[in-house]
Amino acid sequence: MKHPYTMPGLTLGILGGGQLGRMMCIEARRMGITTICLDPSPNPPAKGVADLCIQGDLYDPVKIQELAEKAQVLTFEIEHVNTGYLQTLETQGFTIYPSPKSLQVIQDKFVQKTLFAQANLPVPPFARTYKELNLPFPLVQKTRTGGYDGRGVSILADETQVATKGLEGETFFEELVDFDLEIAVLLARSPSGETAVWPVVEMVFDPATQICTKVCAPARIPAEIEQEAIRVSIGAVQVLDGVGVFAVELFVSNSNSNGAPRVLINEVAPRPHNSGHWTIEGSLTSQFAQHLRAVCGLPLGSTDLTMPSVMINLLGEPGAQGKPTIQGYEQALAIPGLSFHWYEKSLVSTQRKMGHVTVTRPNLEDALRLADQAQNLLTITGEPL
Amino acid sequence: MKHPYTMPGLTLGILGGGQLGRMMCIEARRMGITTICLDPSPNPPAKGVADLCIQGDLYDPVKIQELAEKAQVLTFEIEHVNTGYLQTLETQGFTIYPSPKSLQVIQDKFVQKTLFAQANLPVPPFARTYKELNLPFPLVQKTRTGGYDGRGVSILADETQVATKGLEGETFFEELVDFDLEIAVLLARSPSGETAVWPVVEMVFDPATQICTKVCAPARIPAEIEQEAIRVSIGAVQVLDGVGVFAVELFVSNSNSNGAPRVLINEVAPRPHNSGHWTIEGSLTSQFAQHLRAVCGLPLGSTDLTMPSVMINLLGEPGAQGKPTIQGYEQALAIPGLSFHWYEKSLVSTQRKMGHVTVTRPNLEDALRLADQAQNLLTITGEPL
Repeated sequence: MKHPYTMPGLTLGILGGGQLGRMMCIEARRMGITTICLDPSPNPPAKGVADLCIQGDLYDPVKIQELAEKAQVLTFEIEHVNTGYLQTLETQGFTIYPSPKSLQVIQDKFVQKTLFAQANLPVPPFARTYKELNLPFPLVQKTRTGGYDGRGVSILADETQVATKGLEGETFFEELVDFDLEIAVLLARSPSGETAVWPVVEMVFDPATQICTKVCAPARIPAEIEQEAIRVSIGAVQVLDGVGVFAVELFVSNSNSNGAPRVLINEVAPRPHNSGHWTIEGSLTSQFAQHLRAVCGLPLGSTDLTMPSVMINLLGEPGAQGKPTIQGYEQALAIPGLSFHWYEKSLVSTQRKMGHVTVTRPNLEDALRLADQAQNLLTITGEPL
Repeated sequence: MKHPYTMPGLTLGILGGGQLGRMMCIEARRMGITTICLDPSPNPPAKGVADLCIQGDLYDPVKIQELAEKAQVLTFEIEHVNTGYLQTLETQGFTIYPSPKSLQVIQDKFVQKTLFAQANLPVPPFARTYKELNLPFPLVQKTRTGGYDGRGVSILADETQVATKGLEGETFFEELVDFDLEIAVLLARSPSGETAVWPVVEMVFDPATQICTKVCAPARIPAEIEQEAIRVSIGAVQVLDGVGVFAVELFVSNSNSNGAPRVLINEVAPRPHNSGHWTIEGSLTSQFAQHLRAVCGLPLGSTDLTMPSVMINLLGEPGAQGKPTIQGYEQALAIPGLSFHWYEKSLVSTQRKMGHVTVTRPNLEDALRLADQAQNLLTITGEPL
């Protein structure tokens, strides 16, 4: 640590003040940790819960330096930040977790995948050009940097679509995996290399928007798939020398040559992740508390499941704009085991993540059924400002 | 409701901004409820998490009116408030839960006990004077109003101590119950009379200070005692026509004439309570979230236990003063299943409640053992400002 501290007094600087930063700040309040967020918005979701919000661009060296000077540890809740300047700060002795180096690798999906492949971790076949890839269409094209929530991904049915549906900028191509299931492994790694892994979860995506709509904890998968997914995910975070909470999204597929299920790494997020929101209710340590523990060099908490949990995202309805309003709030709160989470975003838009709910029940089937009820009851619309 | 609302937009006014108000505000943030606290301190524990803190005395009609005008619902986190003015506001159409009437009854322990006795709820024998009580010494003398955490209570060994150790002001006398155990029943009641009860807990008090040091959930008591405690507690809250979360503290004693265990009501708190802090981790709905649901007229949440939990209070060390510092923080966080809660009070003093920790484990014996470890590791001292 560049600055010594006693408790309370440990201050964490967070690049970004969105819902992930917000939920980190709430846990920090409980744990006696002070938080300062840097966010371009004057009124980001973390505003009401952080000790201080600095308004500024996440690429502005002056603002990042200001944040660093006030904190003992720096972290981020979004990957789109000035990694180069974070590296400069690191050489000046500032503590930054995950390290700018791991972030830089993750920011470039092509570099990330190359590193995993070199470490013999299973990834779908990929190459810079579709000719190099040498696989039959359909193929997936991805931008190397900047994509999220389905942005920066294009599925190309045949060679003619490379011209018509191809992406701009630096891209690469990979096999369109015919997966049966998408799962995620959420884990934390401390500066000393200690890891703590939560039970593996299933992720359900909207086929149209590719936004995650539902997460089911634990995943309904055979033990050998779970073990393989955990092995691969710990390997991936070790290869990245990651410190903090990481989410590894994986495909489970039956389509390899000998018919045995295979597990393939899709993407890695170097931070708390939508697939881990269920941990607030469903685990002894939430992903946000765990991230604080990990990046502050504190002992990791127990990742034991307390009860099966299903999380659904509350997204802005198609066409919604203006001030958000919640329909079905009271009815949803009548669902047993339901916890409601609102992110306090001042504006709603189509598919924007406005909040989430988690249903926690003694058995997963009930949690799934009740989460579907909540999904049907709750809609987020907008009204004129 | 005097003011209509849509969600988000429901605003709760809270008289008091101490640790209970703070923990209400944290849950409110999650649930999309706006909070405004009134507190005499410029920097109360709720400051960093409430949407607004008004500085002012809890007996000042002008300040209470200001709070009420900004909110759809009023509640309180401390009993020492201007009940008379709240009654005036209620007649003006403001929604206040628990009602000023129930609060008024609870504020006067003599009136409270009289009401319970009239409803055939079990209370220790009591009377205005020790002569009326007509029981052998030792006896307990209590002030009718204003006592808490052992203040306002005196144990008198014999008649001569009535003069030497007797309390000032309006008091009453009651039997010194030779109890085996102190337990608490935490429950919520909605405006429509729906109740939700958490598992009964054991409370452990420091014999010297009479401050609660440890709470053990669930209580290790026979099922018939648990059922009787719940029956009596629901009865007490119904008699008070209570709305919100209530904690009923009871004595369990073997000392009645036929040797069967008896359950006696000791005190009722008309708000979330120290005996319910464990619900943040150990139950599907925390007492703070449930209080918000109840006073806002929303459906009550599930009070199911997720895992056995033991809570210990973090109190200022004897002689501690100045800026608080935490010793043993990192070591305590290594205890499996431990959650750390800090209240952000700017000054520490002897026995002041500065925070708490909860240890949640698959079995209660482990939770108890680990909570004792935490108790030994953690000390809260002070340093000069």
